[in-house]
Amino acid sequence: MMAAKKTQVAIIMGSDSDLGVMKEAAKALDTFKISYDVKILSAHRSPDKTARFAKNAKKNGIKVIIAGAGGAAHLAGVVAAHTILPVIGVPIESKLNGLDSLLSTVQMPAGIPVATMAVGKAGAINAAILAAEIIGICEEKIEKKLVMFKQELVKKIDDKNKQLKI
Amino acid sequence: MMAAKKTQVAIIMGSDSDLGVMKEAAKALDTFKISYDVKILSAHRSPDKTARFAKNAKKNGIKVIIAGAGGAAHLAGVVAAHTILPVIGVPIESKLNGLDSLLSTVQMPAGIPVATMAVGKAGAINAAILAAEIIGICEEKIEKKLVMFKQELVKKIDDKNKQLKI
Amino acid sequence: MMAAKKTQVAIIMGSDSDLGVMKEAAKALDTFKISYDVKILSAHRSPDKTARFAKNAKKNGIKVIIAGAGGAAHLAGVVAAHTILPVIGVPIESKLNGLDSLLSTVQMPAGIPVATMAVGKAGAINAAILAAEIIGICEEKIEKKLVMFKQELVKKIDDKNKQLKI
Amino acid sequence: MMAAKKTQVAIIMGSDSDLGVMKEAAKALDTFKISYDVKILSAHRSPDKTARFAKNAKKNGIKVIIAGAGGAAHLAGVVAAHTILPVIGVPIESKLNGLDSLLSTVQMPAGIPVATMAVGKAGAINAAILAAEIIGICEEKIEKKLVMFKQELVKKIDDKNKQLKI
Amino acid sequence: MMAAKKTQVAIIMGSDSDLGVMKEAAKALDTFKISYDVKILSAHRSPDKTARFAKNAKKNGIKVIIAGAGGAAHLAGVVAAHTILPVIGVPIESKLNGLDSLLSTVQMPAGIPVATMAVGKAGAINAAILAAEIIGICEEKIEKKLVMFKQELVKKIDDKNKQLKI
Amino acid sequence: MMAAKKTQVAIIMGSDSDLGVMKEAAKALDTFKISYDVKILSAHRSPDKTARFAKNAKKNGIKVIIAGAGGAAHLAGVVAAHTILPVIGVPIESKLNGLDSLLSTVQMPAGIPVATMAVGKAGAINAAILAAEIIGICEEKIEKKLVMFKQELVKKIDDKNKQLKI
Amino acid sequence: MMAAKKTQVAIIMGSDSDLGVMKEAAKALDTFKISYDVKILSAHRSPDKTARFAKNAKKNGIKVIIAGAGGAAHLAGVVAAHTILPVIGVPIESKLNGLDSLLSTVQMPAGIPVATMAVGKAGAINAAILAAEIIGICEEKIEKKLVMFKQELVKKIDDKNKQLKI
Amino acid sequence: MMAAKKTQVAIIMGSDSDLGVMKEAAKALDTFKISYDVKILSAHRSPDKTARFAKNAKKNGIKVIIAGAGGAAHLAGVVAAHTILPVIGVPIESKLNGLDSLLSTVQMPAGIPVATMAVGKAGAINAAILAAEIIGICEEKIEKKLVMFKQELVKKIDDKNKQLKI
Repeated sequence: MMAAKKTQVAIIMGSDSDLGVMKEAAKALDTFKISYDVKILSAHRSPDKTARFAKNAKKNGIKVIIAGAGGAAHLAGVVAAHTILPVIGVPIESKLNGLDSLLSTVQMPAGIPVATMAVGKAGAINAAILAAEIIGICEEKIEKKLVMFKQELVKKIDDKNKQLKI
Repeated sequence: MMAAKKTQVAIIMGSDSDLGVMKEAAKALDTFKISYDVKILSAHRSPDKTARFAKNAKKNGIKVIIAGAGGAAHLAGVVAAHTILPVIGVPIESKLNGLDSLLSTVQMPAGIPVATMAVGKAGAINAAILAAEIIGICEEKIEKKLVMFKQELVKKIDDKNKQLKI
Repeated sequence: MMAAKKTQVAIIMGSDSDLGVMKEAAKALDTFKISYDVKILSAHRSPDKTARFAKNAKKNGIKVIIAGAGGAAHLAGVVAAHTILPVIGVPIESKLNGLDSLLSTVQMPAGIPVATMAVGKAGAINAAILAAEIIGICEEKIEKKLVMFKQELVKKIDDKNKQLKI
Repeated sequence: MMAAKKTQVAIIMGSDSDLGVMKEAAKALDTFKISYDVKILSAHRSPDKTARFAKNAKKNGIKVIIAGAGGAAHLAGVVAAHTILPVIGVPIESKLNGLDSLLSTVQMPAGIPVATMAVGKAGAINAAILAAEIIGICEEKIEKKLVMFKQELVKKIDDKNKQLKI
Repeated sequence: MMAAKKTQVAIIMGSDSDLGVMKEAAKALDTFKISYDVKILSAHRSPDKTARFAKNAKKNGIKVIIAGAGGAAHLAGVVAAHTILPVIGVPIESKLNGLDSLLSTVQMPAGIPVATMAVGKAGAINAAILAAEIIGICEEKIEKKLVMFKQELVKKIDDKNKQLKI
Repeated sequence: MMAAKKTQVAIIMGSDSDLGVMKEAAKALDTFKISYDVKILSAHRSPDKTARFAKNAKKNGIKVIIAGAGGAAHLAGVVAAHTILPVIGVPIESKLNGLDSLLSTVQMPAGIPVATMAVGKAGAINAAILAAEIIGICEEKIEKKLVMFKQELVKKIDDKNKQLKI
Repeated sequence: MMAAKKTQVAIIMGSDSDLGVMKEAAKALDTFKISYDVKILSAHRSPDKTARFAKNAKKNGIKVIIAGAGGAAHLAGVVAAHTILPVIGVPIESKLNGLDSLLSTVQMPAGIPVATMAVGKAGAINAAILAAEIIGICEEKIEKKLVMFKQELVKKIDDKNKQLKI
Repeated sequence: MMAAKKTQVAIIMGSDSDLGVMKEAAKALDTFKISYDVKILSAHRSPDKTARFAKNAKKNGIKVIIAGAGGAAHLAGVVAAHTILPVIGVPIESKLNGLDSLLSTVQMPAGIPVATMAVGKAGAINAAILAAEIIGICEEKIEKKLVMFKQELVKKIDDKNKQLKI
């Protein structure tokens, strides 16, 4: 399901146990027909590969990086340190309900932003949508898909209301 | 100091008491020579103006919206509901240290992302940098400024180390 | 089970997944014979319908609005922005135990109150009772039902004490 | 400044140290020309007087009770136990930033609702507005004041925007 | 299993759903051969009975009151308001992990102490031991049982160490 | 001001910086004419002295131990480990608002209770009152003082109400 | 599996219910071929044995102590009070998600450090690795094992990436 | 005051604003006559220098690394990723009271430990003492200083008790 050449988005995560959450980002990118790549890269266990990935991402044509991690979730911040691409962080649930993951991802010092999403699957899906919104600024094709996506959200709620029984 | 025509970024905030924090975003955009507009718009006190602003932002040429709010900080989420532009949320300190502002901004449901920054001034500065990174994807001029900005960060630390006395 | 004409209370919720909690409000209203309507309305996914609903609620004869939502729970606040009717907020459990839902609902800025209830089902039941108390101010029939309801609470505890085995 | 006969709202608080916050509720009621009474009543230090007050409130013509307390803030809940009037709780700041006050006020068991407001002064102001909304359901005079109050909120934001300098 | 005449300890709880936790207190009192009584009494649903119980406890020969409650746990505080007996509070787990129960129980204002225990079963057991320690101050028989109980704790750990396999 | 022979209560604290809070306990014991002793004893810095103190407290005639500490507040728990006397813990404010002090004091394992009070000065005052309640069980003189103390609480609120101006 | 003579590390825990977590530390030490001993020692239930253990640890040849405990987790701090050996604390999950265990372990006063690890199994494993790093400073054999261990971490991620399917 | 050749400890911090806290570590190392070096190194602003520093620390003779950082405090974790030396993390106060700094430092994944200290100055002092304890394992000179340091702690408390006035 991974898109072919000219990958626009990189989805990275700290551990393969994060895949259950992060594949939601992949599925959402599929609906926007945005090409992506998925990789396990740990800020702590494979720091050099992570740094190399981040430094080369732009020249490899990547436009947005989505990074998911839990606990002392440093991955998004560490990647953001090495790139001028927008980095989107997805905090993944942990021992402390994901509060640690959220704070470790969002409380970045001035100079190095991480665009932080909600904890868990909703966050992973939204990371993909934000990536689409970012790419959509200069790609009209994506922009149109986003307009349709928003209309679809309204329609789904209409349908739910029709089925609603209480 | 507000930039002239073809405004690229809108900085909005829930109350004029948020200006002390949010003008940091404006100052940071100045360094990237990105044009912006500043407005007070409340999700709760002026909901119709806020909705109208959000719906028209794209056609008015805005590329990124930065929204700062505190407490039950709904502004960024409400704006995101009405636009397909990337919306960046800055949680502003409150009675509960900003934890309420942070959670109200970041925990968005699947479908409507808000790119959430750190609480307070660091978050406002980073909102501007993230806006630059997003615009930089299709504007080479901004991209170059970001590369220089990152080099500057390293240099500043070098300078601090030279002055370091203990 | 939904009451016929002259609906007095509107029960709205952000998603059909909230129905398990919010139908407790409906059941409690049934015991007070207060008519109500149930709708899915999202502050984020169907913002225009939500605003329209809130603006028209009063002229449609609604007296109290009960709004349930989880995560960055903006629904009650957004509805309150558009009406002068009392709005009761029910925070629904989420990734962060409902702390995010609670803070997003209760920490409203001066000017726009949301009458916030406990997290989850107890909150949904209490929303209905509060609605009855509010309507009971000018409807003697409801007032009497509330007096009986309170006596019933005492009696139930008496019964439990009789059955108590340890 | 306290209104004359036929008092509609009772403002009570656990200690005179809460007055700095709770007088905001009184001032807001003044703007709606709603009559009120202010009393110190402690759930813990004067429990009998508190219970007597709550039991008699309705027959004394009170329509809404606003109760402010901090720490293990039991006042609103204890009063709600003795009345079928709507009880609005205002959590007041404490050693733990008001999180204890908030949770003690809002997490009421099924059967006894407390309409909880934000922590501190914003909460006190909103308690008065909610009281107005509740009374406004059957008093057209108040209803009109609320409509004007909401228009005023929008106008104030317009004024702020005109003055905005950055 | 409930002890006969001259009841020394009252175990009360807000709801029969708390019995699973609070019977641990009863069992622990059995091991100290301290007589007790168990009752459901709600600060919110049966406030008059609760007040009456608390006011009469001392003259009924009760020496220590153990009160368990969850959520906005007002029971221990409300009882303490009406008695000069030592009141021990046991916070019971809730939607927010028991943090609300704990803070509502422990953060009492100056003048009305509640001896707060840990959240849940450990707290219920410890409430009984604390009751024994309090009664043990003037009853030598209980004092001896406490000395033996402490020796038993050490012995149990020795036994566990002997069985320890890793 | 420290009472002479036959000391009934020991007030201990982890550091002399805790004295500002803990002297409130001493002052409150003075009003009940309960004799006490004040000592600095650290669970971490002088563990042997602390253990010796706790082991000998009962045979030295002490009836209740009040222990104040902040941060990883182990003092009350460590003392409780060595005695069958009731131990009252006062959590003292810290870097994390006293939440760490509170949790370290209250969350004791089954077997070793610590009667935990509110964070800070209110907690210190209440520790003294609880000590009086405990001693009052077998000392009629103290019991009478407690009855008067409770009447005084009510009277003070009456006085405040008379002075109340708004 | 416990290593023979010249034990270098002591693994202690407050209760046998902590063994499920703490045996992860033992297994990790096995991979470094570091000898260890496992014991149940409670700061509260067997305080004298715990103090004796800590005082003698150094002269018994122990180099590092790993202590796991939950709730009001005093074990690591109490042991650190009696030794100049490095003490590593592992907070174990509890009623409050382990936040109480974490704060009770980490917030030690100046003078008595506890090297605190993450909550739960990850923390237990890391305690063993930190012990290896500490011993590795003066034991070249361990140092080499650590270098290999780090290389292994990278390799495992490479393998996971090869297997990655999405 | 910085010690000359053969530096044993490196004190690093994310920003010069952390110096107020971190110089406490330096002062404490001075009392143990342990040589150290102080540097500003940011995980986010100077990631390459930070990685290089960490990779070379061991071969440069460093035995222990102390890293202080606030907010999304990644410094200690990032350094730990590149070295097999023990890394001690000091969480520095921030917008959220240091809870974010603490969780970002301590919740490390299995494989990469960070020995986390208390938030703020107490943590910085303890980082130095832990470093001394670690070095003391193979340096008898340091070991003796630690024994004296512990005796000094007891003596200081004795002195405070002599001066105690209440």
